Amino acid sequence: MSKAINIEQCFEKFTDTFSPKVVAQVNSQNIMLVRLEGDKVPWHSHQNEDEMFLVLDGVLDIYLRDDQITLNPGEFYVVPKGVEHRVVPREKVKLMLIEPDSTAHTGDVKSEITKAEYEKLSC
Amino acid sequence: MSKAINIEQCFEKFTDTFSPKVVAQVNSQNIMLVRLEGDKVPWHSHQNEDEMFLVLDGVLDIYLRDDQITLNPGEFYVVPKGVEHRVVPREKVKLMLIEPDSTAHTGDVKSEITKAEYEKLSC
Repeated sequence: MSKAINIEQCFEKFTDTFSPKVVAQVNSQNIMLVRLEGDKVPWHSHQNEDEMFLVLDGVLDIYLRDDQITLNPGEFYVVPKGVEHRVVPREKVKLMLIEPDSTAHTGDVKSEITKAEYEKLSC
Repeated sequence: MSKAINIEQCFEKFTDTFSPKVVAQVNSQNIMLVRLEGDKVPWHSHQNEDEMFLVLDGVLDIYLRDDQITLNPGEFYVVPKGVEHRVVPREKVKLMLIEPDSTAHTGDVKSEITKAEYEKLSC
């Protein structure tokens, strides 16, 4: 029996931050949910992978080296491959992330938030 | 100057139904928005492409040959490649679709709603 994935119910299953949970895959892309709180993401890029940020709750600033994008709920932005970026939540943010399952969390940069692999969440 | 894509503002730019608009691309996947109204989608499958349906407004029934999934707002489902499906909106639905840009709209099946290619929407 197949079932719908309810995004809000998925978020109720975890409270940790900066730790994306894979809730589905579509054509080798991970559909991930993540909570963000605090300024912890280092500047990094992904050589071969675009990364899509869809804000579900809260406000997220995405900094590029020469630009800045602010995402409110219901807004998204695709950081193209190779482009250095950094994301900073204003208070708490709930985010959907879409990127290939080959993508390293913080690119070639290691930091306190870097995950070697992402947890899969059944929800 | 890069800017956020506001999903609701994108929907304000079109009123036609069953005509997905490409609003972004991420790793060769089309991020598409579409309005659905009425029972018009034929049974079809996509040989090599998974297809993700994320309901933003309204209620959508996805029928598989041996199963049925109901999506409310904030819920999604990935129809795996090769699986025959048919989607039926209950009244009006606003949907985000994610699938490779190679995907034929209604698979090998031609119908009144079939699009040869998708319109790109800047919003």
